[in-house]
Amino acid sequence: MRTGIATVCLAGTLREKMQACAIAGFDGIEIFEQDLVTSSLSPEQIRSMAADLGLTLDLYQPFRDFDSVPEELLAANLRRAEAKFRLMSRLGMDTILVCSNVATASIDDDGLRAAQLSRLAELAGEHGVRIAYEALAWGKYVNDYEHAHRLVELVDHPYLGTCLDSFHILSRDWDTAPIERFNPEKIFFVQVADAPKLSMDVLSWSRHHRVFPGEGQFKLAKFMGHVVRAGYTGPVSLEVFNDVFRQSDVERTAVDAMRSLIWLEEQSARWLEANPSPAEAAAGAGRRRHPMELATLPRVAEPAGFNFAEVRAADTAALETLLGQLGFGFNGRHRTKNVQLWTMGHARVIINEEAPAAAETAIAAVGFDVDSPVIAAARAQQLKAPAVPRKSQADEEVFQGFAAPDSTEIFLCQGSPDGAPAWVSEFGPAGAETGPAAAPQAVIDHVNLAQPWQHFDEAVLFYTSALALEPQPYAEVASPSGLVRSQVMTTRDGGVRLVLNLAPLLQQEGGPEQAGTAPAGTPRRTYQEHIAFAVDDLVATARAARGRGLEFLQIPANYYEDLDARFDLDPAFLATLRELNLLYDRDADGEFLHFYTATVGSVFFEMVERRGSYDGYGAPNAPVRHAVQYDHLHQLKLTA
Amino acid sequence: MRTGIATVCLAGTLREKMQACAIAGFDGIEIFEQDLVTSSLSPEQIRSMAADLGLTLDLYQPFRDFDSVPEELLAANLRRAEAKFRLMSRLGMDTILVCSNVATASIDDDGLRAAQLSRLAELAGEHGVRIAYEALAWGKYVNDYEHAHRLVELVDHPYLGTCLDSFHILSRDWDTAPIERFNPEKIFFVQVADAPKLSMDVLSWSRHHRVFPGEGQFKLAKFMGHVVRAGYTGPVSLEVFNDVFRQSDVERTAVDAMRSLIWLEEQSARWLEANPSPAEAAAGAGRRRHPMELATLPRVAEPAGFNFAEVRAADTAALETLLGQLGFGFNGRHRTKNVQLWTMGHARVIINEEAPAAAETAIAAVGFDVDSPVIAAARAQQLKAPAVPRKSQADEEVFQGFAAPDSTEIFLCQGSPDGAPAWVSEFGPAGAETGPAAAPQAVIDHVNLAQPWQHFDEAVLFYTSALALEPQPYAEVASPSGLVRSQVMTTRDGGVRLVLNLAPLLQQEGGPEQAGTAPAGTPRRTYQEHIAFAVDDLVATARAARGRGLEFLQIPANYYEDLDARFDLDPAFLATLRELNLLYDRDADGEFLHFYTATVGSVFFEMVERRGSYDGYGAPNAPVRHAVQYDHLHQLKLTA
Repeated sequence: MRTGIATVCLAGTLREKMQACAIAGFDGIEIFEQDLVTSSLSPEQIRSMAADLGLTLDLYQPFRDFDSVPEELLAANLRRAEAKFRLMSRLGMDTILVCSNVATASIDDDGLRAAQLSRLAELAGEHGVRIAYEALAWGKYVNDYEHAHRLVELVDHPYLGTCLDSFHILSRDWDTAPIERFNPEKIFFVQVADAPKLSMDVLSWSRHHRVFPGEGQFKLAKFMGHVVRAGYTGPVSLEVFNDVFRQSDVERTAVDAMRSLIWLEEQSARWLEANPSPAEAAAGAGRRRHPMELATLPRVAEPAGFNFAEVRAADTAALETLLGQLGFGFNGRHRTKNVQLWTMGHARVIINEEAPAAAETAIAAVGFDVDSPVIAAARAQQLKAPAVPRKSQADEEVFQGFAAPDSTEIFLCQGSPDGAPAWVSEFGPAGAETGPAAAPQAVIDHVNLAQPWQHFDEAVLFYTSALALEPQPYAEVASPSGLVRSQVMTTRDGGVRLVLNLAPLLQQEGGPEQAGTAPAGTPRRTYQEHIAFAVDDLVATARAARGRGLEFLQIPANYYEDLDARFDLDPAFLATLRELNLLYDRDADGEFLHFYTATVGSVFFEMVERRGSYDGYGAPNAPVRHAVQYDHLHQLKLTA
Repeated sequence: MRTGIATVCLAGTLREKMQACAIAGFDGIEIFEQDLVTSSLSPEQIRSMAADLGLTLDLYQPFRDFDSVPEELLAANLRRAEAKFRLMSRLGMDTILVCSNVATASIDDDGLRAAQLSRLAELAGEHGVRIAYEALAWGKYVNDYEHAHRLVELVDHPYLGTCLDSFHILSRDWDTAPIERFNPEKIFFVQVADAPKLSMDVLSWSRHHRVFPGEGQFKLAKFMGHVVRAGYTGPVSLEVFNDVFRQSDVERTAVDAMRSLIWLEEQSARWLEANPSPAEAAAGAGRRRHPMELATLPRVAEPAGFNFAEVRAADTAALETLLGQLGFGFNGRHRTKNVQLWTMGHARVIINEEAPAAAETAIAAVGFDVDSPVIAAARAQQLKAPAVPRKSQADEEVFQGFAAPDSTEIFLCQGSPDGAPAWVSEFGPAGAETGPAAAPQAVIDHVNLAQPWQHFDEAVLFYTSALALEPQPYAEVASPSGLVRSQVMTTRDGGVRLVLNLAPLLQQEGGPEQAGTAPAGTPRRTYQEHIAFAVDDLVATARAARGRGLEFLQIPANYYEDLDARFDLDPAFLATLRELNLLYDRDADGEFLHFYTATVGSVFFEMVERRGSYDGYGAPNAPVRHAVQYDHLHQLKLTA
């Protein structure tokens, strides 16, 4: 698949954008007119720079408001177009995007439109330029891709074809199956963009909220499957207007973009395989391949569970105390590294002592159980996940690790559902010698990671493509410092649950006092992350932890009154919840009990019990947790 | 007018919110249930704290999903309600907001609904609680305020009334005139919120994008006029869900909120005056006053023009050179302060030398011509604009100054349309001795100020209420560092044009390298502001400036080719534009020529010529300006 990207997707100048596209490995680019108009590079310099960078210049765009106008305006439009054709020949470009008219269309007549497009194609042909005509979703008369295609067929000119843009098609919920019947010679260009499903006017949606494939909710693999089956072999090019991408680091965004196309290519191949046409189904294994060959990736199953979580700290004493009080046993130190292993059943926490002195205690890494770490790592690598080296001795297990967009290290480990992973033997002396006598079974239920706002969409694609997690509908949770957007990513069986939290902006910047407006003494609000462990009997676990002196997050009395008003709980049960600072939720699927520890650095722990088929995270209780943590932090800072 | 605000409008804990509301001067508050549930304060503590702070607890909210349900669910809902009534008696509160059912309504029958509301009112009455029933804009069966009111009339129970929320009414475009015919005894509560007109689903619009009155586009003065004429005398309370306010400094947001109610009160009084009912019109001057007396503010005319602009710099040499090259004359130094005066016709620029050594050159203050500085200052003061002291000697003009939300100082000066203001004589020796012999007439055309993202809405209200400027439809401009939102505020005759620019977030934070992801060498991107001067003959002004060695912002050749393609310009004129680095725009009203200087610190200057009735700012050229400035800054930093 030939990959492309429109320069409008990226931040920076045209020169910076082109360099970033080349580094990310794109085959070609679309030149967004404004990027050229504002550039100090001449058309000839751009042409030669693209050649040096190994980038083809695939599409000049956009040319607006051409068709469906009175003759006088048409003459001006043709004049305007010819200036662009001349410019394109200096750039060495042969295809221009012409969008259906929005602003100046005044005559709704397909015959007239066809005649006007024919004149444009004729003029373009004289300059060796091909017109890729696209129906904008908000075009005044032409806003349906089949309508645009009918016009192209009607004109039947070698220099007129259509451009298919997934956003303009899928935002309107048009059926994409008819694409298969298009003449591939008449599809001049294909643009892809994903988007979250939003109920807003389509122009604002398009101009601000597009995302790269895999970061939204459009059925892009199906769209691409139809395009491939039609016989299209040209570039598949990203055209993503996104307020965040336009201000983010250009090289990083370009890599994110490239990852989305690599992933889309694989998903499209899978869709074609799973949805054969009747002819393909009849031909069976011997069916003909599509002219556009789709590259595949190493195929991996979704991870079976968490292998471990790692917390890094300069001073580990508080962490050790907390884990011991929760019921974790100390399994010894690694024989060559400065790390400790703590376990409670299948829940394994590594304390990494190699943090710089000033570093705050933080979640540093998460390990996932996969069938084959080597194959999973090869897949991640092909998806341009940045590898992280981890030193190991000759006889130690080698971890395949990658940096997630929030810089947490992600390790792909050999799964060992029925026992301890091999690497545990590198810690010694083995056994929970210092742990409680009868530690309950436990597993890591979920890990909650704070995401920088610039990398939230990138993180969703990263975990979707490299780890085969699926984004669930997101939630918004109120906190005293603003709304927190919470995006759960899971495997289908819930064996892995990762929660990506997008903290309020001001909190990410370090609190309002940085803006120079807050009164003195306002605390710097850092954002907290956590690891949650699931046990079978939360009440017993909580009692035991209390016996060991655990400091629970103190839940306000008002919460229990509201709980009672909402759920009409058995008084003894409510008294137990209140006594142990447990939180409670219930839905049609089951019940959820949980509690939180105090925070160490930016890390705290949660213990949960899932009853029945409860599949949530106690979202109604999250505001309570946020408020109490905020209060606690505030008091800490005021007394500091 | 009794002022109120819902705690959900603000950031922080309940304690912090209540303190901020008291400081800002609110009469009362609405307690948002989640703020109470997550609070460590007991209901009795909240009650006593409110009493200490002088705040009444006006409304407990919200109680959701009560009506239109089967009997079994109704019983559970009544039980749930009674728990809240008991809680309210501990809080000493007597009014609760009940919203029309969204989630569990299953029976659409007004008779049944009335019977259910009647039972609720009966139960509430036993606890001394009044039910304020509100139609949510997205209520399943009840989503029209007149429908809610009909139900209240039908039930006719002393403990059941309606709550009017401007958002739920105006977001649906319901006519507000029928409010006048409501029985005021049945209006238990009035909530006000403004909002920008957005085409999106009303729930998302409501939950994220409400703003304080004067910061959006709703006709709130008319809404309030009808409410007042109905005879309502209860609290007028803000209920504004806004993602930014929820994370901003709580005391500052509370002041912004209070300012919006003070302004709304005045606007409502003016609306009533301008729109008398037939009976009021017939009664003439002797007409009866409304039971809710609306306070008025000192009334001022809109400012007539700019009096001066002030730039502060540690090293003023570059500024002096730039102004001299533009054609400004040096009018001397102030006799007691370290400031210089530079003039060109009526355009006056003060260079303030009192910047700290490390401070970047920046726009520090803007002076406006008003009829009466004392009255205008009194108005600003009543609108809680923070006054800024400016030292002056006994015989010098005293400036009335206030800090705008972006901390620019705003001065209210005696207008002097036909001559120099009196304060000019404090500079000496007078006369443009060092300026060019025949300086053209000039005025300050517009001033462009960068706004921090947290204070953008606040700034719109500040300039609307304190300076009587009117917000125009906003524009979005592409720059290499992201989209810039540009909000023009003007007087009706265009005598004052202020442009508030909301820079991309990452730029406000100091560029992507601060996120730790950008390659070394990436420049820190600071945001630039500017002052634009209008002259009669821009070409002559530019030639003269070039003769004096002015460094123009260099416009790329590609721009002129595009200009020619768009406008089909006379070749000689195009050559002049190109030769002098002038930018050009044209619309149905006229033409616009302009050029920019290089940047000093964070300040640059623009010279413009308006031809015909052109009323814009050359928006199509703004991306060119941003790109060239970005390039220039980038090269500067790379070679530094």
